Amino acid sequence: MRTNACSRQTAALVVAALCLGCLPRLPAARGADPLPSWNEGPAKRAIVELVDRTTRADSPDFVPVPDRIATFDNDGTLWCEHPMYVQGMFVIDRLKELLPRHPEWKERPNFRAAFERDLHQLALYGENGLAEIVMATHAEMTVDEFLATVRAWMAQARHPRFQRPYTELVYQPMLELLAYLRAHGYTTCIVTGGGIEFVRAWAEPIYGIPPGQIVGSSIRTKFQLDGDAPRLLRLPEIDFIDDGPGKPVGINKFLGKVPIAAFGNSDGDLQMLEYTTVGRPGKRLGMIVHHTDAEREYAYDRDTRVVKLERALTAAPARGWIVVDMRRDWRRIFAFEK
Amino acid sequence: MRTNACSRQTAALVVAALCLGCLPRLPAARGADPLPSWNEGPAKRAIVELVDRTTRADSPDFVPVPDRIATFDNDGTLWCEHPMYVQGMFVIDRLKELLPRHPEWKERPNFRAAFERDLHQLALYGENGLAEIVMATHAEMTVDEFLATVRAWMAQARHPRFQRPYTELVYQPMLELLAYLRAHGYTTCIVTGGGIEFVRAWAEPIYGIPPGQIVGSSIRTKFQLDGDAPRLLRLPEIDFIDDGPGKPVGINKFLGKVPIAAFGNSDGDLQMLEYTTVGRPGKRLGMIVHHTDAEREYAYDRDTRVVKLERALTAAPARGWIVVDMRRDWRRIFAFEK
Repeated sequence: MRTNACSRQTAALVVAALCLGCLPRLPAARGADPLPSWNEGPAKRAIVELVDRTTRADSPDFVPVPDRIATFDNDGTLWCEHPMYVQGMFVIDRLKELLPRHPEWKERPNFRAAFERDLHQLALYGENGLAEIVMATHAEMTVDEFLATVRAWMAQARHPRFQRPYTELVYQPMLELLAYLRAHGYTTCIVTGGGIEFVRAWAEPIYGIPPGQIVGSSIRTKFQLDGDAPRLLRLPEIDFIDDGPGKPVGINKFLGKVPIAAFGNSDGDLQMLEYTTVGRPGKRLGMIVHHTDAEREYAYDRDTRVVKLERALTAAPARGWIVVDMRRDWRRIFAFEK
Repeated sequence: MRTNACSRQTAALVVAALCLGCLPRLPAARGADPLPSWNEGPAKRAIVELVDRTTRADSPDFVPVPDRIATFDNDGTLWCEHPMYVQGMFVIDRLKELLPRHPEWKERPNFRAAFERDLHQLALYGENGLAEIVMATHAEMTVDEFLATVRAWMAQARHPRFQRPYTELVYQPMLELLAYLRAHGYTTCIVTGGGIEFVRAWAEPIYGIPPGQIVGSSIRTKFQLDGDAPRLLRLPEIDFIDDGPGKPVGINKFLGKVPIAAFGNSDGDLQMLEYTTVGRPGKRLGMIVHHTDAEREYAYDRDTRVVKLERALTAAPARGWIVVDMRRDWRRIFAFEK
């Protein structure tokens, strides 16, 4: 019989304490700033206050560990979404790769708009026009094949401006925030409008968030046993759109609890912020990352090629949502910055 | 700033060790049997072997903690499903309660069959006939209202034979198994053909399994903000059937990892067992609870009013699945037994 990892860790610490004859210094007691990439200001204060009020045993807003759920949008909240959603870049690269097998795509205006990265034109073909393209690049293969395809693409794709892998374009302050919340018993979950398996393919090592804590949009899958090979086939049918009013639905469906805190950056997160904070008892936090730094990243809100930040920004003051001013509040945006 | 719960616990243990001048005895090292309701035999040995081989650091089958996923069917695997699924009992009681508001139900043959608990007759009206009844009792209310309804019913409903709350009819050996696996770093998940929110309403305190680790069948929901009240409305539309070939689909969708071990009791679990064990590298465990004890519980397999155990039982020897003989392998079935 084995002792479990937790017991072993505890035993090691106990041994260390006995050898040293003193208590080990616990990380959280050291006074080191767990959020070094956040400048002092209202956003950082709001985060520290949330953790203090919801985790201090004698606080009237104390939340038991199993109920400490924090949800994060992904695109534009945890990583860079400009000049185009990363998954959009993936779709275009996949279309080009698959084109030799599908010469007929050249004749179809929605596919042409995608090749030319003309999102305005693509939008004219509506949801069906877009769905066709998504299905052509995301379906008719197994789940394992899709995950391998995404990982292989992610390993070699580069952001057009920063010339770095997209997984280096995650926001350092948000990585620190995820770690800080988890160190205080929070379960950190992603609730993305993007594809659930697209994000699951790479998120666990990057964010420390396992697949079961990632909610996203999905297509249907089907199980079949081919000889001795169990397979899940990805079908060309939409299963669930985890965006806007779909986000509270996705949170309830996948996580089954109302978050204590929610973090977003666009109107696609409006309903998640409402669901988390409006009319709820106890301490809650709604936070919006406002892209205000064209120099270090991008600056946009009401006027952008990706989903706008308009209604949520207007609603923020009355709802008590904290707006992070990226330029002012973030000392460092990316880990690779000097 | 606060130290987190884990650090506080560690600190307390360290202090205790210093005071006592000796290492505290760790539970798993004590040699106490963590599975006292299991008789010695092949089933118990298979469980202990799984844990040993997948969690011992020097084992060739070692599995890192984040990948230690074990999935459990609910009805008939974790609790009693005879003489009828508990959720079926709930439906009938709800129909009776709602009948004064819906006198027209008396005229409809599928509703009449349900009132009379005539499952054979009810089956004749097909999926649509059954879906109508489920929708009449599960939809057109908010998620919170539904959870409250289930909890209120569960608090007063009694099993017709045992005259106890259904939540006392969970299997003691399986509770020990859940705790044993969790103590060794496993995440224990429910994958039920039953309603996801029906199970989530009561499972966390009973099994120690939070809602986010419960996968089940579902109906659609819709978000709306009524003034300052965020609501999720339950719509009369099926979203997902988590049974048979739906179980691997549900596991991938909600948990995003292939389980290391799966536990079921009927042909509704066949594909989950296949998905978990067939053609997978490393140590895996598929286990079937075989109801063989008419005296203490029930005895059934190929001939039953609930889902049969037939194909999975036939496949078990070739697949290496362990069949638990309830009468022989379980010293105690329910906690209330003497």
